[in-house]
Amino acid sequence: MQVVITGGAGFLGQRLARSLLKQGSLPDRNGQLQAISKITLVDVAAAGFDDARLEQVIGDITDPALLERVITPQTAAVFHLAAIVSGQAEADFDLGMRINLDASRLLLECCRACANVPRVIFTSSVAVFGGALPAVVQDHTALNPQSSYGTQKAIAELLLNDYSRKGFVDGRVLRLPTISVRPGKPNQAASSFASGIIREPLNGQPAICPVAPDVRLWLLSPRKVIAALIHGYSLAADALGQSRTVNLPGISVTVAEMVAALERVAGKPVAARVEWAHDPAIDRIISSWPGAWDTTRANVLGFVADADFDDIVRAYIEDDLPAA
Amino acid sequence: MQVVITGGAGFLGQRLARSLLKQGSLPDRNGQLQAISKITLVDVAAAGFDDARLEQVIGDITDPALLERVITPQTAAVFHLAAIVSGQAEADFDLGMRINLDASRLLLECCRACANVPRVIFTSSVAVFGGALPAVVQDHTALNPQSSYGTQKAIAELLLNDYSRKGFVDGRVLRLPTISVRPGKPNQAASSFASGIIREPLNGQPAICPVAPDVRLWLLSPRKVIAALIHGYSLAADALGQSRTVNLPGISVTVAEMVAALERVAGKPVAARVEWAHDPAIDRIISSWPGAWDTTRANVLGFVADADFDDIVRAYIEDDLPAA
Repeated sequence: MQVVITGGAGFLGQRLARSLLKQGSLPDRNGQLQAISKITLVDVAAAGFDDARLEQVIGDITDPALLERVITPQTAAVFHLAAIVSGQAEADFDLGMRINLDASRLLLECCRACANVPRVIFTSSVAVFGGALPAVVQDHTALNPQSSYGTQKAIAELLLNDYSRKGFVDGRVLRLPTISVRPGKPNQAASSFASGIIREPLNGQPAICPVAPDVRLWLLSPRKVIAALIHGYSLAADALGQSRTVNLPGISVTVAEMVAALERVAGKPVAARVEWAHDPAIDRIISSWPGAWDTTRANVLGFVADADFDDIVRAYIEDDLPAA
Repeated sequence: MQVVITGGAGFLGQRLARSLLKQGSLPDRNGQLQAISKITLVDVAAAGFDDARLEQVIGDITDPALLERVITPQTAAVFHLAAIVSGQAEADFDLGMRINLDASRLLLECCRACANVPRVIFTSSVAVFGGALPAVVQDHTALNPQSSYGTQKAIAELLLNDYSRKGFVDGRVLRLPTISVRPGKPNQAASSFASGIIREPLNGQPAICPVAPDVRLWLLSPRKVIAALIHGYSLAADALGQSRTVNLPGISVTVAEMVAALERVAGKPVAARVEWAHDPAIDRIISSWPGAWDTTRANVLGFVADADFDDIVRAYIEDDLPAA
């Protein structure tokens, strides 16, 4: 059982690799557990840990030779996490197209060329929705992305669905809520603040919230995202029916409720480190995303959200807060 | 005022060119009528007519040099009609991707490189919908194509919307109903029979209907398609709001109703030339398409459907039936 993770040196990629190495096995296409013999992390940088089963490939995933080298007939699972995040894809259109669209298609082509069709897991995003939206987005709500990132993710979804329908890959797309709380540093995602306003105060730093307190977000913790990726891989193809895309469960909270949860879990002085400074460019992107979606299908398929945002804050403290 | 039509030697392309040459002018971006000085038809073959204002370019629209040559800073309108039809795109996946996706993207890139952003009109299709559909598809119904053609058209829609949002082009996508009655010969579209069962009997030939009599189609005549293309070009960008995609009006009829209309207009012996021979592959594609969609938005924007199918049959007889 060999696994490939693109964006493998990123926060989610590393965490997924660690979880897979810890659990040690995955079901094969017949549902039989098989030991994981190799995990290949593909990224522009190296991951910060090592394991006898870990291979690290550093390079450009738009390079066909690189993908052809790492995706082989022995590859059973490909987790495609590499992406240019929303803010950066908006600022650099061509880079977003190259990584979020061209590399995704190239990856599908490499999988198609394999004698044994691998399971391919794409991550997508709330950003595929936009425009006039119902209060709760449904599975059958039209995609109308209002950002280049959302457009590129929507296209990758369509490609993966058609490649799966044709039998070229056995694909699954998980539409991720905004992930909070991400550890580490702010990134160029428009939603970076959704982690920053919790992470920075807990680390004794001020944090700027660029959107209004009543802006509603649809959130999932890193713990639950990793569980969803592994669960998404493990589902039988038949369970997915006529669409390979699943809107993952999340919790719907306003930014004000997030800060209130921080105050409940960590105290008033910590929550007081959040400063409010409106940024219209970020607000425009974030406000175009749905604040909640119907998760009936995901629930039936066995995906699970966090209990509430207090739980998410506590999970960050347990998993990621550096020892004082 | 210079106009480019890809697929310009095809049935719609030629008819659009003739209509534009006849009307002689189009509004510019300020709504001022300007004389059409040149129409460039790009296709793999030559169109069967000539005009002093007509330029014919024969070549492959996936060739960047060709598109860069025909789309210039003087180009005000690009009607992108070139496509691999549904049945052929399903049979030859890579050809469909190359023409329906890669060439569309290349065309957008060529337009983006122009100092004066041209208006770009894409045609899309009922085939972008699929799976479990409401009886009447709404503007906000999710795309869930069940064919490679539908997938490629859906992707082109997303690209055109994002290129328009970014200001790279001033785009419009018209989602066409199935066109009936097309003149000429059957083609590899899964919906080819929707013209054939009217055209062949009127020309004294038998025609095979590969789907059940109660299959419902969403139809528009060639006359109304051409009018819609020109109207779609002429709309001000502001009128389109947050989506550049418009579901065109059509009429919703069953195949049995189409044959009944043929009998009313042309008589029982003509209608009796339709033979029923079920083809599961065609039925599967056609039945995944919506039989009707809500056209409120298109109506507000001024697009117009045919009155009924009898009218469509009569229009074919007037416009296209060869003199006996």
